[in-house]
Amino acid sequence: MKKFEEKTISSNQIFNGKVISLKVDDVLLPNGNQSKREIVNHPGAVAVIAITDEGKLILVEQYRKALERSIIEIPAGKLEPGEAPEVTARRELEEETGYGCHKLSCLQTFATSPGFADEVIHLFVAEQLFEIEEKAELDEDEFVELMQVSVEEAEEMVKDGRIYDAKTAFAVLWMKLNKS
Amino acid sequence: MKKFEEKTISSNQIFNGKVISLKVDDVLLPNGNQSKREIVNHPGAVAVIAITDEGKLILVEQYRKALERSIIEIPAGKLEPGEAPEVTARRELEEETGYGCHKLSCLQTFATSPGFADEVIHLFVAEQLFEIEEKAELDEDEFVELMQVSVEEAEEMVKDGRIYDAKTAFAVLWMKLNKS
Repeated sequence: MKKFEEKTISSNQIFNGKVISLKVDDVLLPNGNQSKREIVNHPGAVAVIAITDEGKLILVEQYRKALERSIIEIPAGKLEPGEAPEVTARRELEEETGYGCHKLSCLQTFATSPGFADEVIHLFVAEQLFEIEEKAELDEDEFVELMQVSVEEAEEMVKDGRIYDAKTAFAVLWMKLNKS
Repeated sequence: MKKFEEKTISSNQIFNGKVISLKVDDVLLPNGNQSKREIVNHPGAVAVIAITDEGKLILVEQYRKALERSIIEIPAGKLEPGEAPEVTARRELEEETGYGCHKLSCLQTFATSPGFADEVIHLFVAEQLFEIEEKAELDEDEFVELMQVSVEEAEEMVKDGRIYDAKTAFAVLWMKLNKS
């Protein structure tokens, strides 16, 4: 875990935002030389592979300003400070899809962009879904459109590029291997 | 592609680094309200599913300062300005593993962290590998350790958390579905 460790010589905090922060660290390399690392800190996120009783995958289309386009993803959202990932997963599922679930398990935790960011994503599987009667509100700056697709449809969407999101592509392969 | 578009009202460039830059945009939401978006710009990257003649997957362990740990990944690296992804893929494969390949194809392009970054990763499959006689040099601040694992071993490494990287986990599922 510490192989080829890069020790921090000094750290320069550049930005502290609402979602992310940015710092530039001077580091000591394993060979004794120095280098700089530009690092984005992120609170971490969850994503949910939500499977209906018919075996369909729930997807969410939303605009992603960083990409200047809308993309299709599994439901996801960032952790609030001190929040357990399972709580975030239930909240995001409910807010984005209107579904609760009787069965929720954490499949895996992954780094998304280890070259420059510390973001990790906790990937959950939600089953035995039920409609929430009083649907929770989306964040006031969130707009999403829902769809439900079969594993075969989702696979086509990965192949033809309609699914353009790494965590969602992983979810589709996982569904193919484990739920079809 | 433009569903729920968020129009830029103003953009404030915060940081321009060697690898990434950061801006904060004021945006006009679909409902007429305003919000802020913190956005990291990244040049994009490649990752390579490199498969030996024995059907093994080549993995690279390296220290990732953002995570303050070393992690195991498929070979990967960022695009140089104006560089075609296929050129980057061949270069990174050669630099990080010492292998060239007779067969290289682009499998997919994915956004890695669409909530805050525009990074996309072009995922390649490299086959018919051959050892490069005069191995290309790693970047002077890069230190890696190589391993070759079977699909079954790689699956175990995803399950027990030794593979902690999203693109690598995708690669392992893809290998399982297509090459075993």
